[in-house]
Amino acid sequence: MPVGTQGSVKGVSPRELHELSSQIVLGNTYHLFVRPGLDVIKHFGGLHGFMNWDGPLLTDSGGYQIFSLAKLRKITEEGVEFQNHIDGARAFISPEIAMEIQMLLGSDIAMALDECVPYPCEYDYAARSAEMTTRWAKRCKQWKNDNAQRSTPNAQRPTEQPSNYQPAIDPLLFGIVQGATFEDLRKKSAQAIVDMDFDGYAIGGVSVGEPEEEMMRAVEWAELFLPEKKPRYAMGLGTPPQLLELIARGMDMFDCVLPTRLARNGTAFTAAGTVNLKNAEFILDTNPIEENCACDACREFSRGYIRHLIKAEEILGLRLITLHNLHFYLNLMKQARTEIERGTFAQFRKAFVAEYKTRDALIVD
Amino acid sequence: MPVGTQGSVKGVSPRELHELSSQIVLGNTYHLFVRPGLDVIKHFGGLHGFMNWDGPLLTDSGGYQIFSLAKLRKITEEGVEFQNHIDGARAFISPEIAMEIQMLLGSDIAMALDECVPYPCEYDYAARSAEMTTRWAKRCKQWKNDNAQRSTPNAQRPTEQPSNYQPAIDPLLFGIVQGATFEDLRKKSAQAIVDMDFDGYAIGGVSVGEPEEEMMRAVEWAELFLPEKKPRYAMGLGTPPQLLELIARGMDMFDCVLPTRLARNGTAFTAAGTVNLKNAEFILDTNPIEENCACDACREFSRGYIRHLIKAEEILGLRLITLHNLHFYLNLMKQARTEIERGTFAQFRKAFVAEYKTRDALIVD
Repeated sequence: MPVGTQGSVKGVSPRELHELSSQIVLGNTYHLFVRPGLDVIKHFGGLHGFMNWDGPLLTDSGGYQIFSLAKLRKITEEGVEFQNHIDGARAFISPEIAMEIQMLLGSDIAMALDECVPYPCEYDYAARSAEMTTRWAKRCKQWKNDNAQRSTPNAQRPTEQPSNYQPAIDPLLFGIVQGATFEDLRKKSAQAIVDMDFDGYAIGGVSVGEPEEEMMRAVEWAELFLPEKKPRYAMGLGTPPQLLELIARGMDMFDCVLPTRLARNGTAFTAAGTVNLKNAEFILDTNPIEENCACDACREFSRGYIRHLIKAEEILGLRLITLHNLHFYLNLMKQARTEIERGTFAQFRKAFVAEYKTRDALIVD
Repeated sequence: MPVGTQGSVKGVSPRELHELSSQIVLGNTYHLFVRPGLDVIKHFGGLHGFMNWDGPLLTDSGGYQIFSLAKLRKITEEGVEFQNHIDGARAFISPEIAMEIQMLLGSDIAMALDECVPYPCEYDYAARSAEMTTRWAKRCKQWKNDNAQRSTPNAQRPTEQPSNYQPAIDPLLFGIVQGATFEDLRKKSAQAIVDMDFDGYAIGGVSVGEPEEEMMRAVEWAELFLPEKKPRYAMGLGTPPQLLELIARGMDMFDCVLPTRLARNGTAFTAAGTVNLKNAEFILDTNPIEENCACDACREFSRGYIRHLIKAEEILGLRLITLHNLHFYLNLMKQARTEIERGTFAQFRKAFVAEYKTRDALIVD
């Protein structure tokens, strides 16, 4: 899922997202709550209409950003009081409010409010936090049972566009497994969340600074408890090899800012690892970012030209790398689906990871 | 002509330029000379191939930027010695070198090297300078006669694209009228330049800080001498009403950075004047930037959303305003051509200027 933090996947238009065959976009509740504010998005009939995205939207609960960006947090059983990082205004969010906001945004997949603890984290705090996350999940589920439909329709674009997308009247709700890096906590959390019967399951509290092996173990512990027939979403991940490793561990969905964030620094993803196009070696390079890549940037522009654009701080440079990087990620996921259907995923993963890592160690910036 | 200062019309892709029906793009010789440098562009087979623009390119001579951006200039009859504004490297440009560079870039319309004097300017200096510009124009013309074809073909895109554009083997060369704000100097310069029989004629040294009436007079004085059957190009202009006023005075071609530059500040052009979309009045505005505008930004996005993007410093915001502004300018020129053909240009110009200026005085930022 490309990440549309502030109501826009950075540098990319909705038309380009469709051309990239992006099936879904993630919207960040906290960022939109702070700016432009919920009254504005409500006025525009929800986030789909506001940003003109006529495909599915997953919204996070806002919890992760409250814990990583906001100031002066006060966490109680009831919810979290905080000051936002833009103008310092005080606000309060509870599981019920997080649900209400996501329904107002017009979410197609809403996430339960959780507490995402930092790494490293004391066992006792992690245990108490995971238990509270479970109680918060129960309250989210209860709120949804009591308020079956979302509060705003998806409408009010300036002009109409043909689209196959029909907004869900009754959006999905995913529960989130926490438990930090502790086996018993991860298992207990997974069991408790699954017992509540959500529409899908996410693994949170990963990729927060822990070593990769710890992350993989946290996913493996939780995964054992997740029902096979429901989507599993590993949150906030990751590098291309990490995604394949997590697919091998049963994960189905990911959101990741790397394709858009690294593009703004001149870094492009390729099957042979990342390349930083600012490097002088690309000055006279007439090849595309990646040989045989089908994205618009690779079909039409050279590494040398894109390097010039990045060095000259021309916006087209980061646009082209962003397009390529999103294509790379979305295409990798498409290829993974194909390989799974063919029964050849294990070989594909092994070969990709080996090729990617060798080169990446030499070239990464 | 949209301005592609550093090998890119800021924020816009070549595909978007075609969708905007942009007939030609201007490239800035000085900027490209400084970065990425001529060796790089030569390696890519010229500017068309480098930036993947398969339409006509007009290049300036580099003179204007040497006189406005470069440091430690030393002007002699032979040419100009200067230090560039990026890394301070010393360089020398003469009429012959300016021609050579433009041929290397693959220009379809090259400009003679001129000295653009500042405003205000002493009569004696303006007189000596205009005479030197005339001698430099003669040298440019001579160089072109001696070196009929340009030095690089337009080729070497990473992949081939279908296009109707065929690069000119023998590009056009335009002479430039100078003479500051002095009637006799403008007339003398125009007569001397026209006597050399260029492919087209530009009026330079306008829009350099002088009052609008002075600018209009400078154009009128020169215009009397320009042959009717050859294109006339008013350089570095202007606001939408200025363009119509200049068309009324016989001008055919313009280059202007306002559509792209003001977009980056949140300012959009409309028939009723400019609007700054940062203004709070647009927070809940579900209308497009301009009612009935056919551009992609207006067909798909609201003022309220674009305002949010600009406030949140999202790149898509300036992309959308840039698209609208370029469409506005290109469409205004298209409409002017139609009105001229219909014989109704005078009424059109009068009505447009009246409507634009009234509102603009109230709203401009």
